[in-house]
Amino acid sequence: MSDPDRLAKLLSERRDRHVQELFELLRIPSISTDPAHESDVRRAAAWLRDDLAAHGFEAELLETGGHPAVFAERHVSDDLPTALVYGHYDVQPADPIELWTSGPFEPTIRDGAIVARGASDDKGQVFAHVKGAEALLEADGELPVNLKFLIEGEEEIGSRNLAATIEANRERLAADTVVVSDGAMLPGKVPTLTYGLKGLAYVELRVRTASRDLHSGAYGGAVPNAAMALAAIVARLKDADGRITVPGFYDAVVEISDEERAQLERVPFDDEAFAAGIGVSATPGEAGRSLVERLWVRPTLDVNGIGGGFQGEGSKTVIPAEAFAKISCRLVPNQDPARITDALAAHLASLAPEGSEVEVIRHAGGSWALSPIDGRSVQAAASAVRTVDGRDPVYVRTGGTIPVVADFQRLLGAEVVLVDMGLEDDRIHSPNEKFDVELYHRGIHLSAELLRSLGRA
Amino acid sequence: MSDPDRLAKLLSERRDRHVQELFELLRIPSISTDPAHESDVRRAAAWLRDDLAAHGFEAELLETGGHPAVFAERHVSDDLPTALVYGHYDVQPADPIELWTSGPFEPTIRDGAIVARGASDDKGQVFAHVKGAEALLEADGELPVNLKFLIEGEEEIGSRNLAATIEANRERLAADTVVVSDGAMLPGKVPTLTYGLKGLAYVELRVRTASRDLHSGAYGGAVPNAAMALAAIVARLKDADGRITVPGFYDAVVEISDEERAQLERVPFDDEAFAAGIGVSATPGEAGRSLVERLWVRPTLDVNGIGGGFQGEGSKTVIPAEAFAKISCRLVPNQDPARITDALAAHLASLAPEGSEVEVIRHAGGSWALSPIDGRSVQAAASAVRTVDGRDPVYVRTGGTIPVVADFQRLLGAEVVLVDMGLEDDRIHSPNEKFDVELYHRGIHLSAELLRSLGRA
Repeated sequence: MSDPDRLAKLLSERRDRHVQELFELLRIPSISTDPAHESDVRRAAAWLRDDLAAHGFEAELLETGGHPAVFAERHVSDDLPTALVYGHYDVQPADPIELWTSGPFEPTIRDGAIVARGASDDKGQVFAHVKGAEALLEADGELPVNLKFLIEGEEEIGSRNLAATIEANRERLAADTVVVSDGAMLPGKVPTLTYGLKGLAYVELRVRTASRDLHSGAYGGAVPNAAMALAAIVARLKDADGRITVPGFYDAVVEISDEERAQLERVPFDDEAFAAGIGVSATPGEAGRSLVERLWVRPTLDVNGIGGGFQGEGSKTVIPAEAFAKISCRLVPNQDPARITDALAAHLASLAPEGSEVEVIRHAGGSWALSPIDGRSVQAAASAVRTVDGRDPVYVRTGGTIPVVADFQRLLGAEVVLVDMGLEDDRIHSPNEKFDVELYHRGIHLSAELLRSLGRA
Repeated sequence: MSDPDRLAKLLSERRDRHVQELFELLRIPSISTDPAHESDVRRAAAWLRDDLAAHGFEAELLETGGHPAVFAERHVSDDLPTALVYGHYDVQPADPIELWTSGPFEPTIRDGAIVARGASDDKGQVFAHVKGAEALLEADGELPVNLKFLIEGEEEIGSRNLAATIEANRERLAADTVVVSDGAMLPGKVPTLTYGLKGLAYVELRVRTASRDLHSGAYGGAVPNAAMALAAIVARLKDADGRITVPGFYDAVVEISDEERAQLERVPFDDEAFAAGIGVSATPGEAGRSLVERLWVRPTLDVNGIGGGFQGEGSKTVIPAEAFAKISCRLVPNQDPARITDALAAHLASLAPEGSEVEVIRHAGGSWALSPIDGRSVQAAASAVRTVDGRDPVYVRTGGTIPVVADFQRLLGAEVVLVDMGLEDDRIHSPNEKFDVELYHRGIHLSAELLRSLGRA
């Protein structure tokens, strides 16, 4: 049934049509954060539903309480494995609009790339899967797996209704493998498969030392200072070796295997280019760990913001009565976000200097996710990469957090593999967002081959 | 020539007139910061000039480039000492106006106090000196000292032209004693003489770690964090004993004498009321020093404000590339503000962690001032207090800084004594500012007796 030549011929013939169809989707300004675009968001969902329905899928909109999600399914056989492609059709606002060279919702091809809001994040990447599945279905007459799509409309506003939607539709969404394409390949268009994500714990520390700000002349030398108390606490969150001092923080951390470490060492990661690209003069961190290991495998802690006292121009001689810090940790297997949050909150309270009252507010976090490299899903994707790119993929983890991926693991029991199709410089969330045209066509081909591989696995 | 009964009788007869005259001055909205009130500011200056000229003084306006200063002089004899009264006729804005019970520029007496903007700060206090001198001149036929007034119109906007005005008029302003009344007595209407002020050094520390804010998922664990670097620096500015770690910081500090220490111990200062009034649960500071000593005699360091990274509602997973702290020191004899600023800047730079670039911006500071308790000026004021209040004054220093007072010492070579007439709860700079009527009359009497004491000294 499977005829590589037929698929290749079909993909070749349809290159222009695939671009034009993506353009249609990109023309719909589905900005999820802007109430003025609510009907556009729904229009994009309906457009995707109709496209999937026209090509062999049972497709519908799932109401979520917010923007709808597109759900589509082609059930082939109970004996076949089931894959679910997750993505999102909503986009970031286009501001600052004056920095766009062409209209953000008037897609065009410039310098070999499709330029439009959502081209890479994530309409282009998720639509590559839609087109790949449709092409494969037509070329082979049937899919080699059961296939589902879940394409949501609230990713850019925190996927606020997604966990509940997954939970409510658990059986319909059941899958062996979840495929997500919403990220970037390594620089140089190196085929990249991401098999691990970090989790997140996020708190806000508030320090109070007096009932009001005090004059530093009238009170200096005899009262606690909230900004200094905050600094004293923050300065003690890491030790001289860059290790996080929260008691028990590392207890659940799983050391990576020798195999995985060897794998990481083979990643073509350029430490100097990394530093130069962001203007840092040093790359400090946990002692005895490589830069890649710290970025992808080790848990981290950062202060995301601080404030307190007088922040205006010039000088004001005030002793701040209040100060705050936003503090977050990226977590790795098997750290539990709730437990780490508790431990962090207790640690912050324990570090409060004399005369300071500490309050810890908890913000939303998320769990880490990890799929085995040698598991069926990651290896199926690797096989597809070999077919399409003629080389082995590089296996990476990331310090980023996609709570929904952990939800898929936890609620659906699925393996998750992130098949990155974009590039680091795609300017997602920025003016002149783009998606390389050849990488779009590669993505369509890769998606089709991935389904074939999963069918064989 | 000096007849106590005659002065007393005259002050008693003129109580109502003295209040009505102050009311006239208070009715002029001389808000120096508001360009809309520029002519009112000048009107207040002219009113004071005319009042002084009508009562035996040569009086004029000194142009400063900003609002004018009132200068008045009565030269009696080259053989007599010269006193100069410094004060200001400009006032703070009245906002928030809706919180005033009566119009801020419609003075009225309520609960035994004159209620109006400027009643205590500083029209009421400086005008008590004007009325005291006028009454003494009339009662005794001549003043016992040469007397000058310098009443400026820019105190509430930082006295920005005052130092230059003093410098340009150095010979005309020459005096043996400068008297300032622009502060508060100790609680309980305890007669208070302030003989020492602290100086000020003020810098802004800016830390930069990268060319832009970075995503904590993509970069966490491998890059410096400006907010954390800032905290690390700030946390090291004091040691475990609360001593400031700037090298050489204490080198020039003069230990107070046993006599002065004994004096300080006699000050009726209630540590618990101090803490309760400002809602602090502890009064930490330099080890081995009493609270009063820390407030008035020891140099201090405070962070006045900090900021960096995400400060909005909720959470954002960013690694700040920049953070800042405003840091100031209150200085004591014989610390030099410029040298301390240099040492502080160098120390901040030396504390910068790996990967952080530090910039130090210098803000305006000011010098400390100190007059000997047993000197002629302070003791003349003490003698006047004994005559008027029937008790000894309490001698205090303050942690506050009035750069102009140091300028008087430095440029005029004068002793300075601060004869506080107001109360802590006078609501200066706030709605319903007030000045106790009896304290106003006491101030007039005290001013007259002070001139007598200075004449005898």
